Amino acid sequence: MPEARATAVPRHKDNDYTNEAAAERRAFVQSRTGVELRDVGAYSFDPSAVAGNVENFIGVAQVPIGLAGPLKFSGEHARGDYYIPMATTEGTLVASYNRGMRLLSECGGVKTTVVERAMQRSPVFVFDDALQAREFGEWVDAHFAAIKAAAEATTRVGKLGSIYQFALGPMRHLRFNYDTGDAAGQNMTGKATLAACQWIAAHYPGGARFLLSGNMDTDKKHSQANMLLTRGRRVVAEAVIKNDVLKSLMRVDAKDLFHARQVSQAGAFLAGSANNGQHAANGLAALFIATGQDAANVAESHAAIVYAQLLENGDYYWSITLPALIVATYGGGTGLPTQRQCLEMLDCYGAGKADKFAEICAGVVLSGETSLASAVLSGDWVASHDRLGRNRP
Amino acid sequence: MPEARATAVPRHKDNDYTNEAAAERRAFVQSRTGVELRDVGAYSFDPSAVAGNVENFIGVAQVPIGLAGPLKFSGEHARGDYYIPMATTEGTLVASYNRGMRLLSECGGVKTTVVERAMQRSPVFVFDDALQAREFGEWVDAHFAAIKAAAEATTRVGKLGSIYQFALGPMRHLRFNYDTGDAAGQNMTGKATLAACQWIAAHYPGGARFLLSGNMDTDKKHSQANMLLTRGRRVVAEAVIKNDVLKSLMRVDAKDLFHARQVSQAGAFLAGSANNGQHAANGLAALFIATGQDAANVAESHAAIVYAQLLENGDYYWSITLPALIVATYGGGTGLPTQRQCLEMLDCYGAGKADKFAEICAGVVLSGETSLASAVLSGDWVASHDRLGRNRP
Amino acid sequence: MPEARATAVPRHKDNDYTNEAAAERRAFVQSRTGVELRDVGAYSFDPSAVAGNVENFIGVAQVPIGLAGPLKFSGEHARGDYYIPMATTEGTLVASYNRGMRLLSECGGVKTTVVERAMQRSPVFVFDDALQAREFGEWVDAHFAAIKAAAEATTRVGKLGSIYQFALGPMRHLRFNYDTGDAAGQNMTGKATLAACQWIAAHYPGGARFLLSGNMDTDKKHSQANMLLTRGRRVVAEAVIKNDVLKSLMRVDAKDLFHARQVSQAGAFLAGSANNGQHAANGLAALFIATGQDAANVAESHAAIVYAQLLENGDYYWSITLPALIVATYGGGTGLPTQRQCLEMLDCYGAGKADKFAEICAGVVLSGETSLASAVLSGDWVASHDRLGRNRP
Amino acid sequence: MPEARATAVPRHKDNDYTNEAAAERRAFVQSRTGVELRDVGAYSFDPSAVAGNVENFIGVAQVPIGLAGPLKFSGEHARGDYYIPMATTEGTLVASYNRGMRLLSECGGVKTTVVERAMQRSPVFVFDDALQAREFGEWVDAHFAAIKAAAEATTRVGKLGSIYQFALGPMRHLRFNYDTGDAAGQNMTGKATLAACQWIAAHYPGGARFLLSGNMDTDKKHSQANMLLTRGRRVVAEAVIKNDVLKSLMRVDAKDLFHARQVSQAGAFLAGSANNGQHAANGLAALFIATGQDAANVAESHAAIVYAQLLENGDYYWSITLPALIVATYGGGTGLPTQRQCLEMLDCYGAGKADKFAEICAGVVLSGETSLASAVLSGDWVASHDRLGRNRP
Repeated sequence: MPEARATAVPRHKDNDYTNEAAAERRAFVQSRTGVELRDVGAYSFDPSAVAGNVENFIGVAQVPIGLAGPLKFSGEHARGDYYIPMATTEGTLVASYNRGMRLLSECGGVKTTVVERAMQRSPVFVFDDALQAREFGEWVDAHFAAIKAAAEATTRVGKLGSIYQFALGPMRHLRFNYDTGDAAGQNMTGKATLAACQWIAAHYPGGARFLLSGNMDTDKKHSQANMLLTRGRRVVAEAVIKNDVLKSLMRVDAKDLFHARQVSQAGAFLAGSANNGQHAANGLAALFIATGQDAANVAESHAAIVYAQLLENGDYYWSITLPALIVATYGGGTGLPTQRQCLEMLDCYGAGKADKFAEICAGVVLSGETSLASAVLSGDWVASHDRLGRNRP
Repeated sequence: MPEARATAVPRHKDNDYTNEAAAERRAFVQSRTGVELRDVGAYSFDPSAVAGNVENFIGVAQVPIGLAGPLKFSGEHARGDYYIPMATTEGTLVASYNRGMRLLSECGGVKTTVVERAMQRSPVFVFDDALQAREFGEWVDAHFAAIKAAAEATTRVGKLGSIYQFALGPMRHLRFNYDTGDAAGQNMTGKATLAACQWIAAHYPGGARFLLSGNMDTDKKHSQANMLLTRGRRVVAEAVIKNDVLKSLMRVDAKDLFHARQVSQAGAFLAGSANNGQHAANGLAALFIATGQDAANVAESHAAIVYAQLLENGDYYWSITLPALIVATYGGGTGLPTQRQCLEMLDCYGAGKADKFAEICAGVVLSGETSLASAVLSGDWVASHDRLGRNRP
Repeated sequence: MPEARATAVPRHKDNDYTNEAAAERRAFVQSRTGVELRDVGAYSFDPSAVAGNVENFIGVAQVPIGLAGPLKFSGEHARGDYYIPMATTEGTLVASYNRGMRLLSECGGVKTTVVERAMQRSPVFVFDDALQAREFGEWVDAHFAAIKAAAEATTRVGKLGSIYQFALGPMRHLRFNYDTGDAAGQNMTGKATLAACQWIAAHYPGGARFLLSGNMDTDKKHSQANMLLTRGRRVVAEAVIKNDVLKSLMRVDAKDLFHARQVSQAGAFLAGSANNGQHAANGLAALFIATGQDAANVAESHAAIVYAQLLENGDYYWSITLPALIVATYGGGTGLPTQRQCLEMLDCYGAGKADKFAEICAGVVLSGETSLASAVLSGDWVASHDRLGRNRP
Repeated sequence: MPEARATAVPRHKDNDYTNEAAAERRAFVQSRTGVELRDVGAYSFDPSAVAGNVENFIGVAQVPIGLAGPLKFSGEHARGDYYIPMATTEGTLVASYNRGMRLLSECGGVKTTVVERAMQRSPVFVFDDALQAREFGEWVDAHFAAIKAAAEATTRVGKLGSIYQFALGPMRHLRFNYDTGDAAGQNMTGKATLAACQWIAAHYPGGARFLLSGNMDTDKKHSQANMLLTRGRRVVAEAVIKNDVLKSLMRVDAKDLFHARQVSQAGAFLAGSANNGQHAANGLAALFIATGQDAANVAESHAAIVYAQLLENGDYYWSITLPALIVATYGGGTGLPTQRQCLEMLDCYGAGKADKFAEICAGVVLSGETSLASAVLSGDWVASHDRLGRNRP
């Protein structure tokens, strides 16, 4: 027999998105825990604004925002100087990114490129044996146009670009890859893929059983599949760091920084890390919270691959590739008051802006890489009055 | 020659944490971009509160909080019924977790255990060859007590439990494992480890060159090293789901759910996923933002291993292990107004509460697992009036 | 200045593949080390047979072969009973696989299916920035037919099926996927891809610089890319193990075996293992050496994903997917005397046999899985007179 | 009902290791398949030699051996010039390694170091919940001396160095780390760990259920756990390649080679590869087969981490770390005639030689790395008359 359950949270059936409903729930919390949620209740908008964003609304988390920048971009979509809102509670984060932004800007800015778009839902079809599953896979390939039509009938925006197939035992995992425009697209792809799967189940000779996710979309999870196959947007930020600017602003030499890069990326490889750089998650989380992105997507988005070369002239070519950056400029939390204002100050709110915003995210990430990598190095060597590996064999 | 740079963000040298300074920066943004940061500026506290949390403060992101629960705990530290504040902009997230909390509570609650504590900083020492590095490693082992003393001299709280060593070429990566009490501890461990390294460099015969991080702490990054060796806290949430409750609340049978688990975890393995469960990142991000955790740590914290068994009586044993859950109840953002209120309503603010809060996080995660896994299954099967694998060979 | 170098190994310029040349080198070894390579010199063929297989031939390693089987197959290509030659020096290996073969055969045999074929070479093209690399990628897609023609002009057998693209910084990694028929195909794909790259470099506007391998073919290396994208052949072996046969032959119950599977695959996931099964490498190495496969490909080929389900009637569905099985029945070492004889006894020598041989490999692997998994379990429980988890919550 | 089964392989109950028994089985194969195993039957030793190495002996695989070298070592255990027997059927392999050996030798030789020894068996203990499992773990730590005694009572050679613990749900995975001297040690550690587990089960208050392997030893499987925690021996080979020798012998410049290294290791990271170098498996498989190692261990042993630096003077520091090299100079196949002769010519047969042999393996691997990396580069650039990245931004 189920145990007695504590009192349920009060809800208003007709309209739950009111100041009164929120206040009632805060009072409920106070009655149960003695805590007055005074500041939580100090939001500046009408609760109807958060319908579709949250249930059982009680108020807001007020996350402080710092202003970094300017950061100069010479991307495909992001061009010119941007001031960056970063929501964080970690002291020095804004200052550190700011320092990197200055470095990049003084070296001519950061070049950013969206190189791939692919938001997924990955159903799995289960058969009696591997041969049946293989034949099903061939059928799916042959009927791609119809499957695409079924999927796209559910959405004005989403476009099904491809279906990757993965054979595993008696199963066929399908990874549907969509271009979802300016929305992050998890819901859109879920709905479209369900329609596609239902079409498949109805038309495949003999029928076909499926689960809407076989866990190969790796939604809200980092994976090597995402690294390889992209999730959301694959974005590259790159810059040539001038050694004289580096020395002047960061007090490190490109040669030492590059030397340390060898050490650091070997460590990342040994650790089995999702990212052979420094701390992409910091910049992304701060930007995501400020602009109404889904902060859970930091899980996927923080993956990165740094690729660098020391140039003949002593300058330092530095790139970072974010293979699974999930962003939106439309839908989700992007339209809430503070979030929308932060997107707008980047000229990134609404239709046609997601590529630009993705580039800004990548540029911010690269800023943070330069700053932290330099700090690790200079702090160490200043103390020791030595240079890493100067006496190496 | 550096290019001309856009105007720097205004700062007040004497005291930058004032309403005036914040307003001036918002005005600066408006002058540059035309966007009025009205809601961003609508915070409910004195800006002096965020000194140490953010630089160039301009206001706040208002992230809506929904109230989930109650969730019944029978953990070591968390016991009884809790109401959970979740800050998110993703519709249905709170409702979905709430549903899982009800399931767990009606089945007697979730059992939670912190099984390991280890926050790291991982310096690397570089030598001329592998033999020197190996000998250094032996010296470190032999001088652990002195190294520990040097590290702990910098902190009242942090305790150095062990130093793991990893040999790579001519290097010795050291992973310092600390118990950092109720703080997340990244800064504490950084400072302590720097002191330890300086002590080592001063005392190791012939000296020793190091970088404070060789990237094997994998700070703000998921890694298999974290999976294996813990980062922050390793926490397990587990429950026995009664099949009758499952059928009644979730409209799925334990047998089908377990069948789907085989499918799903094979998919996760094939994908090289950081988590063979569903969506830990969702619950964690929402809790982290509400309670002033470092949201960037979703990168590490979302890793998880689900282990389940179908029991003889038809019930379902379900566990999830979070190997790298990074939380704090003291320091960082935990003391800010809304964040502190949310911690307090969980009775998790301040000293001696981090284990309890970690258990709450894990319990919330398990709630979300049960809800989403059921939804994937029932949605599919309701439509098809079939059961996964009913006709399997 | 280079140091004085020890004497070079004697070689005969005109014809080095003679008994005399081999004997001279063995004498050279004896003169340097005092060791008489008597048995190494006891080969049964004319040394001209190994031209193209080895340089500086001195004789042979005599690796003992045990005979296992019969194993009953109901595959697409392998059908009926097979006796399996296994070259190994590890006692019990043949006996253990033999036991598993008996189990599978008594349960009706093993069903085997080749579900994908793809041997790779993965050149990388390097550009000035990510945008150039992306544009190059689009050009490659648009010119696939011509690239395919250039590649296939170098080979009678190889067919270029697709080119996967991976963007990383200013680079474009291309993974050329070939069907190489009955050859393993590493050389074939290398030559064809070089021709394709040269065609690309000659025709791409402005030219294009490349490396023939950017390490994403992961030749002779396990990788998650191979797991996902196949290397060589992707083969599934599956069987329904009858519980009564299992109990009678292996002294374990399907329920316990399946229970242990949950434990074991969680361990594999935690360990970051290339294989969540038992010991595919054992069977593959033994078959590879016996039949003249490239034993270095055990590195890739041993990767596997086990997927299992306990059936309603108490039987046990067991599948293993080998995503990167690299085999040949033609070329390489397959034509050497003992190797060819071993292929012939499987009716797998020469043209049109590689799929069949791949299926045999997979069936052998599954045999070994059943045997070892049972042994781990029964050894434990026999001692303890208990069943795993009988009293689980 | 079990189906009718094909005839079993003939065996002699009293003594199965005779020429007659082997011949009878070959005749059996011929009667079933029509294939005469003439060369398979042409072994040069008495079959009694393979008792303990193989069951159902029918003869041998004759794998051609080529002689490479000399390779100059300045290791801890391997010193001076060695000629290397490599058993392979892949043309050019011996020649390519030979070229690398010449390069290393002319640059002063390869420095090799065994930096860690740890062969494992990893039992898992299963409890009712995570708390019980944690308490068990503490008990194991507290009783390490007694557990060690129980384990070591079963072996004259093996020494239990440590027990690593991994918490997962209600389980405690233990990774027993042994020094197994000159044996590979899988059986030794299995037996010792079983005794240890039985001691634990008998003495732990309330008893404890276990499986002898929970798959975290990752026996015969690559894993990130092995990368981090070592399996068998962790060995480093390193060398400073002089640029003039490199240019003269390999026709590549150190600068280009290092440039390509950046490309290549980024590719390996993206691919999720077990090895960011070239082809360790090739050299290891050839050495393993020649010297009677367990070729299945190529699965674990081929993992590697290359760490390199371009030196100020233009030379190239190159290291490779093999974290899971499993070798023996005693037991297993090492005592068979051809295998023993190959070990003896390296002065590596018998007691006290395994460290030396491990160093030789690593040195051979590094030779192959230099050769293949150079070939990839020079082949490309010779064709294109260009240098990689010469005009990089």
